[in-house]
Amino acid sequence: MKPLAITLGDAAGIGPEIILKAFRDAPEDLRGCFVVGDAAVLRRAATWLGGAQLTLIQSLHETGAGASQTVPVMQVATLEGEAPVGRISAAAGRLAGRCVSWAAQAALRGEIAGLVTAPLHKEALSAAGAPYDAYPGHTELLQAEAAAFLGRPVADVPVRMMLANEELRTVLVSIHVSLRQALEAVTRENVLQTLRITHAALQPLLGRAPRIAVAGLNPHAGEGGLFGREEIEVIAPAMGQARGEGMEVYGPHAPDTVFMRARRGEFDVVVAMYHDQGLIPVKYLGVENGVNVTLGLPLVRTSPDHGTAFDIAGTGQADATSLIEAVRMARRLTRRADGAFESARIPC
Amino acid sequence: MKPLAITLGDAAGIGPEIILKAFRDAPEDLRGCFVVGDAAVLRRAATWLGGAQLTLIQSLHETGAGASQTVPVMQVATLEGEAPVGRISAAAGRLAGRCVSWAAQAALRGEIAGLVTAPLHKEALSAAGAPYDAYPGHTELLQAEAAAFLGRPVADVPVRMMLANEELRTVLVSIHVSLRQALEAVTRENVLQTLRITHAALQPLLGRAPRIAVAGLNPHAGEGGLFGREEIEVIAPAMGQARGEGMEVYGPHAPDTVFMRARRGEFDVVVAMYHDQGLIPVKYLGVENGVNVTLGLPLVRTSPDHGTAFDIAGTGQADATSLIEAVRMARRLTRRADGAFESARIPC
Repeated sequence: MKPLAITLGDAAGIGPEIILKAFRDAPEDLRGCFVVGDAAVLRRAATWLGGAQLTLIQSLHETGAGASQTVPVMQVATLEGEAPVGRISAAAGRLAGRCVSWAAQAALRGEIAGLVTAPLHKEALSAAGAPYDAYPGHTELLQAEAAAFLGRPVADVPVRMMLANEELRTVLVSIHVSLRQALEAVTRENVLQTLRITHAALQPLLGRAPRIAVAGLNPHAGEGGLFGREEIEVIAPAMGQARGEGMEVYGPHAPDTVFMRARRGEFDVVVAMYHDQGLIPVKYLGVENGVNVTLGLPLVRTSPDHGTAFDIAGTGQADATSLIEAVRMARRLTRRADGAFESARIPC
Repeated sequence: MKPLAITLGDAAGIGPEIILKAFRDAPEDLRGCFVVGDAAVLRRAATWLGGAQLTLIQSLHETGAGASQTVPVMQVATLEGEAPVGRISAAAGRLAGRCVSWAAQAALRGEIAGLVTAPLHKEALSAAGAPYDAYPGHTELLQAEAAAFLGRPVADVPVRMMLANEELRTVLVSIHVSLRQALEAVTRENVLQTLRITHAALQPLLGRAPRIAVAGLNPHAGEGGLFGREEIEVIAPAMGQARGEGMEVYGPHAPDTVFMRARRGEFDVVVAMYHDQGLIPVKYLGVENGVNVTLGLPLVRTSPDHGTAFDIAGTGQADATSLIEAVRMARRLTRRADGAFESARIPC
């Protein structure tokens, strides 16, 4: 079983403390995991939690060797400067970026099973200077690492965000753009690419072709063209091509009931046309269990569905549930059919 | 306690059978209710359910007089022609329209507490000819009746749809238009009008100013203008004016978490910027308990959150839960603070 890396995240946020809490509260789930970070930052976080035992490791072979109570730490970088709790700092941004780059490269080389990323702060990453200020967040940084590894332009490594909890999985055609721009992003090419990435990513997880429901863009999926024609002119043609490629796609369905239907088991995943269409239902029952999965990359990457929470960092109150779920999801994504683990690369 | 009218809906759909089921399964909730319809249509539906006892009433004073097992029916019109089960027919559309008009006028005159409308079929209403073919659905027909009663133009009787279940209430800025058109409908005037209607409608229900959360239009409510400027330029100014008028409004909040926060009790209602933003969370946990409330009219009107379901009409399988919830909601909306009932007109 290859080790699974958990990257530190922003040192000034809740990342370090939820990582320690996860090792403390879910030791079985965290078996085979190690932290990519700076032991000094973790030691500071340990004081907010009444202590934690760390073991510095030098090589990946040591990850499963320590006593179950200790947290294996790979010291890949050191905090250069101060990272006051709950404050944006270039030092924390730079450290967070370096941890992610290290883990991404290890995953791309097949040395680790994948990576689970604790939250980083976008403004801290931006303050960190080159090369990190070029990346709005994790996804773009990982995309750049993958493109460099593959020797392709970044545009040729398309990614999509999947949000998943125990009840629902949704993959988004677009994410952090205005709703007006999201409408423009609903093109045949983008919808088809989303379907291809979704199919390729979930097939190994389910051991069969995923049943992919496609949400319409408009109320009632356009009601036959009465409330918008994107379903007829854009979405259905993309779905037709996907069917021709052997995918199992359904819809386009009315957005206001398709998620409820998927929750009841009718579909394995819903492709959502824009950010809030997919995230409202995933988050409706509570954000603690949401997991973010980046699809399309030649590596497995999951993350908790929350940010750095600067407002409660340093208090020991932060909830590690979503991080633990992200670890479980990464393990499911890298589990082979025979129950063993491997560095399963999601085909892209 | 003034009687509450339940209108028949489309005779070819599930309306008649869910009305009979509601009287049979929830007699306490249905006390004081009567059906506005055609006894022959109800008798046909009774045969699918193993029978039902009807009592024809001539005046509103008789509504509470019958034995609790019988269903009081006010015969306001007769089906003129055939209404084959599960098929669109002008006769069923016309009958449905006449029942709604009768009940609306009785409510406007203050003779009944309000009306609960079983589903009608838009195409059947359109086939029914004048005046009904001018109305896309219940809402527009009720708006026209109210405008005629008030002696105002229809444009001066603005309405909004509220969807509610036990956990969440949401009021929509726009409903049955394409998402592209819904973006154009997010104007200061429309948002402010939605806030005014929401405040006026929920104040008597709650006995205090409702805590109104406003969802943003864009992901993360625009993230300070990064992903769209409607929150800054349109929504926040409308909210400022609403605050100046004494309303308790919060936001604009990130759409993907505001509904979850309202569900947990932080707000009494969420104003949603477009159809699916509000309806996805309301329907996510199942449509059985959703209730549709038309706000802004000088009468109380609720309806189940589903359509005519032609595919299962006539089988006796249709679920009456949402209709029963609609009756309960109508009673809550017409209950005075002292626990008695009256024809509470929602201020507009």
